[in-house]
Amino acid sequence: MGTAFGFSLRAQDGDARLGEIATPHGSVRTPAFMPVGTQATVKGMYPEQIRAGGADMVLANTYHLMLRPGPERIAALGGLHGFMRWPHPILTDSGGFQVMSLAGLRKIEDKGVTFRSHLDGTLYELSPERAIEIQLLLGADVVMQLDECVKLPAGGAEIERASRLSLAWAEQSKRAFEDAGGGRSGRALFGIVQGGDDAALRQRSAQALVAIGFAGYAIGGLAVGEPRDVMLRMVEEVTPVLPADRPRYLMGVGMPQDLLEATARGIDMFDCVLPTRNGRHGLAFTRFGPINLKNARHADDPRPLDAESGCPAARDYSRAYLHHLVKANEMLGAMLLTAVNLYYYQELMNGMRAAIGEGRFEAFRHQVEEQWARGEQGDRSGGPGDPTGA
Amino acid sequence: MGTAFGFSLRAQDGDARLGEIATPHGSVRTPAFMPVGTQATVKGMYPEQIRAGGADMVLANTYHLMLRPGPERIAALGGLHGFMRWPHPILTDSGGFQVMSLAGLRKIEDKGVTFRSHLDGTLYELSPERAIEIQLLLGADVVMQLDECVKLPAGGAEIERASRLSLAWAEQSKRAFEDAGGGRSGRALFGIVQGGDDAALRQRSAQALVAIGFAGYAIGGLAVGEPRDVMLRMVEEVTPVLPADRPRYLMGVGMPQDLLEATARGIDMFDCVLPTRNGRHGLAFTRFGPINLKNARHADDPRPLDAESGCPAARDYSRAYLHHLVKANEMLGAMLLTAVNLYYYQELMNGMRAAIGEGRFEAFRHQVEEQWARGEQGDRSGGPGDPTGA
Repeated sequence: MGTAFGFSLRAQDGDARLGEIATPHGSVRTPAFMPVGTQATVKGMYPEQIRAGGADMVLANTYHLMLRPGPERIAALGGLHGFMRWPHPILTDSGGFQVMSLAGLRKIEDKGVTFRSHLDGTLYELSPERAIEIQLLLGADVVMQLDECVKLPAGGAEIERASRLSLAWAEQSKRAFEDAGGGRSGRALFGIVQGGDDAALRQRSAQALVAIGFAGYAIGGLAVGEPRDVMLRMVEEVTPVLPADRPRYLMGVGMPQDLLEATARGIDMFDCVLPTRNGRHGLAFTRFGPINLKNARHADDPRPLDAESGCPAARDYSRAYLHHLVKANEMLGAMLLTAVNLYYYQELMNGMRAAIGEGRFEAFRHQVEEQWARGEQGDRSGGPGDPTGA
Repeated sequence: MGTAFGFSLRAQDGDARLGEIATPHGSVRTPAFMPVGTQATVKGMYPEQIRAGGADMVLANTYHLMLRPGPERIAALGGLHGFMRWPHPILTDSGGFQVMSLAGLRKIEDKGVTFRSHLDGTLYELSPERAIEIQLLLGADVVMQLDECVKLPAGGAEIERASRLSLAWAEQSKRAFEDAGGGRSGRALFGIVQGGDDAALRQRSAQALVAIGFAGYAIGGLAVGEPRDVMLRMVEEVTPVLPADRPRYLMGVGMPQDLLEATARGIDMFDCVLPTRNGRHGLAFTRFGPINLKNARHADDPRPLDAESGCPAARDYSRAYLHHLVKANEMLGAMLLTAVNLYYYQELMNGMRAAIGEGRFEAFRHQVEEQWARGEQGDRSGGPGDPTGA
């Protein structure tokens, strides 16, 4: 406790960056992947497991927690870190993304957004100021400004309006954060670049945010329906505008491939529900690419997902058993595959960090992609999935 | 591995018995509570956790496993112990109980029962011989005879017919078990006393089973709708008929109170879904009696369920957090409360075993019941649930 927020850039390899974020609850090695703990829990994971899997920081959702159990309640209980038994760094989103997906249930105005709870229909107001207040009540180490995220494809006028509103909210958020003394407690506020799939708008948004000045910069409103190459192009357009001495966070992205590509383009932080959500639905991310445990070909396969993994769930349980658990809709299947996926994501981040530090990021990236493409074809361990096996 | 089944009676206190069962996969301290691993997994629990919670033996369900993934498949994979990563003793039921609850989907004949899978409607036949075959394929340490379990209340003729059929199946089961060499591998076959709520019929059933001769004797067909005192009276009527040197297993019972009462009447083994099922539904069993975490009074309570428990789930997480998880229907809530309940059940068994060994079972029982009745009223730890607290 006690260390103020800061970012140290340790090494750079092409545009890929190795760094470390200091927070009041410990440090975060970057590039970093943050598991998503929507309702103050990463679904199906014990907190100790999340840590043992290699995560330095988790994300929690302002929208969900403001509805239930309520930020004032969490504050009275001593804050989110103790509540969810995660004494390490926490980033909270602003609630904007979730509110925007409520479609018919919400109304956006300059002063903020009014919406009805998806749980019980209660009317809530979320202003830039209230979003800051909630996140400070939760006790987040990194606080995000309220923004408006537009689903793509969208019209140019709509994108521009939302981007403009997000910028106005950015200013208000910074003022509210400073007025509340957020920085004095060592916490940090991040601004969020918007602008849809319009590169010029994205750059103007980034420039304006930098002029306001934030401890870190997020790129929001991507992976919301646009093609993958558009997403990556937006990242490429925006990162040069952002200051090198501040962390860059690509929100809600993505697949393992996206982590490689975006890190190559200078991104430092990620969060995404894909490893946890896919784990609950029977999909494992591995060194050999994704493996769908629902597939009947695993039913008689005694091999673990990855005999060389340091993850007990990947190393110690047979595919046959995982297949059975997934087919039978057993909790343990979701628990094991979530653990497998979070571990693999962190292993990938570890690999990227080591490679950047040693100036071999491109080689590492090609090696990983090649292993994904090859799958387990090179594997001669003789499982029933391999007709040539002993 | 390698030790043949056996039972040693270590001490007796009143009718309560302290003992130890030897099996090919290790020993079981009795009185023993077996967590239920219906589909080759105790719902929401890692195998290591089940062990750490104090369980010596788990139960798995023949009915569920014969449908999915299939006993031949599990045998080809090396058996249930490896499949579910539980290298310790396993008891399997015969499938009779589950089949009987299929009502309209099944047909009972002398040769066995024909039923349709609740999963896909496939027609299956379960004979006494097939039930043995399946359990030997699974690799169970303790195998149960096929029986017919009648839901109570039921007519006398119906109870008598089912009891008679169960006895005929008991003989066939023993022959099948011997023909398959089940005993040579150190495994044991248990007979099951039936007879509904008819004490005389129960006693005749027990006598006939003893005449056939089994390694252990179960009392089945209880906790199926009859009043609790009837259940306990049936146990009282049957246990004197059973040989003292064989373990006695009361199937599918029960609540913590039932474990005390039935142990007092000479029962050595229990299984029940209540600790796991109730855990998934927000109910915790504790030294202070059951605590319903759904109740809003826990929403602001920073206290753990039991600060003095050796169970991390009971000791380290606040009631406020558990309440939140349960209300939000989060997996971690079910995981934690299942762990709390299984731990408490084993703590209770431990306490009973120690008390029997020291000849103070009745005192222990009164002490436990008194603590349940008192609840936490004597607790002055100052939580918000306690208006007098500091």
